[in-house]
Amino acid sequence: MRDSPVSALRRELIRQGLDGFIVPRADEHLGEYVPASAERLSWLTGFTGSAGLAVVLADKAAAFTDGRYVLQLSQQTDAAVWEQLHITEQPPPAWLAANAPVGARIGYDPLLIAEEGLERFVAAGLTMQPVESNPIDAVWDDRPQPPLEPALPHPLRYAGKTSAEKRADIAAALQSAKQDAAVITDPASIAWLLNIRGNDVPFTPFALGFAVIHADGATELFMDPRKLPDETRVWFGNTIALRDRDALAGALDRMAGKIVRVDPAGSPVWFAQRLRSAGATVAAGADPCLLPKACKNPVEQQGSRDAHARDAVAVCRFLHWLSQTPSTTELSAGAALLGFRQEVEGFRGESFPAISGAGEHGAIIHYRVTPETDRSIRPNEVYLIDSGAQYHDGTTDITRTVWTGPDAAPEEVRSRVTRVLKGHIAIATAIFPQGVGGAHLDAFARRALWAVGLDYDHGTGHGVGSYLSVHEGPVSISRLAKPVPIAAGMILSNEPGYYLPDRYGIRLENLLLTQPAELPNATKPFLRFETLTLAPFDTRLIETALLEREEVAWLNAYHARVLAEVGPHLDATTRSWLEAACEPLV
Amino acid sequence: MRDSPVSALRRELIRQGLDGFIVPRADEHLGEYVPASAERLSWLTGFTGSAGLAVVLADKAAAFTDGRYVLQLSQQTDAAVWEQLHITEQPPPAWLAANAPVGARIGYDPLLIAEEGLERFVAAGLTMQPVESNPIDAVWDDRPQPPLEPALPHPLRYAGKTSAEKRADIAAALQSAKQDAAVITDPASIAWLLNIRGNDVPFTPFALGFAVIHADGATELFMDPRKLPDETRVWFGNTIALRDRDALAGALDRMAGKIVRVDPAGSPVWFAQRLRSAGATVAAGADPCLLPKACKNPVEQQGSRDAHARDAVAVCRFLHWLSQTPSTTELSAGAALLGFRQEVEGFRGESFPAISGAGEHGAIIHYRVTPETDRSIRPNEVYLIDSGAQYHDGTTDITRTVWTGPDAAPEEVRSRVTRVLKGHIAIATAIFPQGVGGAHLDAFARRALWAVGLDYDHGTGHGVGSYLSVHEGPVSISRLAKPVPIAAGMILSNEPGYYLPDRYGIRLENLLLTQPAELPNATKPFLRFETLTLAPFDTRLIETALLEREEVAWLNAYHARVLAEVGPHLDATTRSWLEAACEPLV
Repeated sequence: MRDSPVSALRRELIRQGLDGFIVPRADEHLGEYVPASAERLSWLTGFTGSAGLAVVLADKAAAFTDGRYVLQLSQQTDAAVWEQLHITEQPPPAWLAANAPVGARIGYDPLLIAEEGLERFVAAGLTMQPVESNPIDAVWDDRPQPPLEPALPHPLRYAGKTSAEKRADIAAALQSAKQDAAVITDPASIAWLLNIRGNDVPFTPFALGFAVIHADGATELFMDPRKLPDETRVWFGNTIALRDRDALAGALDRMAGKIVRVDPAGSPVWFAQRLRSAGATVAAGADPCLLPKACKNPVEQQGSRDAHARDAVAVCRFLHWLSQTPSTTELSAGAALLGFRQEVEGFRGESFPAISGAGEHGAIIHYRVTPETDRSIRPNEVYLIDSGAQYHDGTTDITRTVWTGPDAAPEEVRSRVTRVLKGHIAIATAIFPQGVGGAHLDAFARRALWAVGLDYDHGTGHGVGSYLSVHEGPVSISRLAKPVPIAAGMILSNEPGYYLPDRYGIRLENLLLTQPAELPNATKPFLRFETLTLAPFDTRLIETALLEREEVAWLNAYHARVLAEVGPHLDATTRSWLEAACEPLV
Repeated sequence: MRDSPVSALRRELIRQGLDGFIVPRADEHLGEYVPASAERLSWLTGFTGSAGLAVVLADKAAAFTDGRYVLQLSQQTDAAVWEQLHITEQPPPAWLAANAPVGARIGYDPLLIAEEGLERFVAAGLTMQPVESNPIDAVWDDRPQPPLEPALPHPLRYAGKTSAEKRADIAAALQSAKQDAAVITDPASIAWLLNIRGNDVPFTPFALGFAVIHADGATELFMDPRKLPDETRVWFGNTIALRDRDALAGALDRMAGKIVRVDPAGSPVWFAQRLRSAGATVAAGADPCLLPKACKNPVEQQGSRDAHARDAVAVCRFLHWLSQTPSTTELSAGAALLGFRQEVEGFRGESFPAISGAGEHGAIIHYRVTPETDRSIRPNEVYLIDSGAQYHDGTTDITRTVWTGPDAAPEEVRSRVTRVLKGHIAIATAIFPQGVGGAHLDAFARRALWAVGLDYDHGTGHGVGSYLSVHEGPVSISRLAKPVPIAAGMILSNEPGYYLPDRYGIRLENLLLTQPAELPNATKPFLRFETLTLAPFDTRLIETALLEREEVAWLNAYHARVLAEVGPHLDATTRSWLEAACEPLV
């Protein structure tokens, strides 16, 4: 009988002199999507969710995930081997402190955890020991090769600003912070900084690699040379020093005496550890690309408008198709939407796995339909579709909630959709001074739900990249948002929702572009949002009597704009449908 | 010629071997109101504002205050001696770092600064040296004696909970935190914990002293024995160990080996320093009385309702008097209000210095009228009155903005008052789940102002004590509020405003009591606010067309309640006036 992964790992741990080991669902960039070669958690436990962590001790093991995936965790992992736990209710450091023998040496791969994450284990009193090489890799026989997709130029007509200008800005920021260099470990930051895009992981078009940018603007890129075709080398010119991934450790070692910025929340702790032992001073600080990347320049802003206008044609065609296709399934509907998007100019792929959920499936916040769970979308139920696309000029993310009919939707559903819509409108119409952060606006989206004792257990909005990650920092709209002010040029999602377990889910999502607000009486700068997404909300789910006058006016103006901007790009039948869908409420 | 205070201080600094010294406006409890014996900043600089700090070097000196007091600072201090600076724009640590000679030893009195405050000086690279005794005290010849007002029992009919029960609760909290004791340096916490009240400083009825509570509930009170009459000693019984203030250092020294909680933000750093050098372990943590003191028990809640109902009679009589007294002044109006309050049963004094400001004086956020600034309240202007009272059963704080007439108020004023009122109503009617903090609600109060580019440069609300401090932590409603959830029983002010410099000020303030919200659909606990304050808003300043239907309904219901609850306690003339003032808007 072949050895189980956990037995093989335990033997390797003994060989390395460790009493335990933690296995986060992470690659060495700590990103949301990871290549198959980094799916160690899945190899070890069978669990394929996008967030989780396993802990292996000599005689016990536990697997943790968050509320989105607890059911999936229990289905995919062997309860005889794994305690299946909720990661915020029973945090791994506390579980380890309670279950590991006193003084146990708990190994961790310093490339797979950030300094702030590691500190939570240390604070629990655990003896944490970094490994030289990941013990899983020693026993994972059929481990896939790391991806080698090419990194290609992201032309100036989409990027809007040359890499040389961006690097000069970052260099100036490092100089004013009196830092000699910054380590960049987020491939999205590298993609933005160097104006390149890649295809190493699903959904996010970046190329895996690392970079170091120095205070004089000189930049080193650490990336497998096989990923850099001539076209890209020409694009870089002679201003970027290209190094193999293997040269990274040596490059850090040569920074003795320098002050180097490392992001304690976003970068693997390995970088800080290596720099410190080389004699460099580590300055904890956010990735310097995060904020400028989030503030889209005018070319990126226009690109996003254009991408949304084209994406809207696919979404409207899909919504029309759905209204004409009484018997379909969740998987078929998702495939139909993808099909419409594939006909859109510049379509590069989905920006995340679409959530196509009918009825009780819609009530699972991060439902992902599979052939096993697929079911018919039936008459007279709520159907939720959350999807997005990557285009050369922008990234989209839209959620609509549809009533399948033919009967009228129940009053309870209509009133809850309407309260979610009130929250959506409150964010869309918010005007606020510079300095306000997402934690201050979040309650606008919830007020109408809170008034009747309802709420939703997720954030209201996240940053979105420009042909890059659909989940982008540093700003979000959430009670727990970091204290980073919202700034002009940021693209944020506006997606309040409501989920009634086992019954239905509601989410209404558009993307917003942050703009300066021109107000005659203002004595300081104010901001407002421009809505980018263009598709009708299902008015059969709206209870007009619950809306204030100004909310009705906003919805009617939005629908008029959808019709005016999308209508001309539709065939006559679909256009007629859109005209009816955009009919003003009175 | 007699030596100036700053020259005398400089000679004393040389004697103590110091190159500089910082003089915060603080006593050894770091409270808002300080006894005359602790007014070192005022003695040294002449500045009498309630927030500020002076820095004295051998050849330079600077005085700092915040935006409320910059004008007063420039008027009260000698510009030939003092650089007059804005404390947030030019923070003292940065000024010292730029102006003190390299390696200068900067003295500080460790009893007058918190650990977190000191850290900002250390972080600026300064060599900070604690003094054994304050050098100002050595040269301040006519320094007043510390106050010796008696500490008296706060009976159970007001306190609602015995000190023994409170001490048992705190002891349990210390045990569960695995701490041996906590140092209590805030006299308001001691007043709450021991059910006593005093009269050592203006406006806040506490007795200055320190306490140590042990994990077994044993409590030591460090207070001048002359402040403890027999009545109070009987009240304490034999459960509180009474010690002289001078015994404090020795008591801390005897805590070697113990883990002792000290509040790094609220307690003088002297405590942590003394404990550490005695061999105790200092556990940084909030004063354990803060949260239970903020959550008023049912007796305190009813006491506050009763106090507000009685206070409302004085406020309504005053507003009527004002409407009948066309020629009065800011000082006279303030005195009239105080006179009406003095007739209220149980009145113990004002809870803070009243702000009585007409026209452009109302635009000064913390205006305090003096004989020099006093002016007539004229026809056709905006008059702002922010005041409060202490009663045995509760503390009040109310602001009303009045149009003096006889002409109609200008549209600009009415629309701005109405936007402030919309913010006030948005807070008053907010319903929100447990876990939400003041930073999440603050924007509700500002949304209508933000919509037209307006804002106010102060928080929206603060905690209020029960016959205790009118400004009480740990919760506030403000963008910068600490991440402490609002909880049932907390009393908070609701006071959005708008200030047009040199023209007028608007503030509309009621106190709120946080209550559980009973909502049939709720699947988790929600909270709502009960408005405690009862006095009409000046409807001549309200633009009904700007209000939503539900806002009009709230205002009319509030005015109906004011009339029903206050009317029966007024004479016929005043009642007629109140009936007109509470006339519903249509």
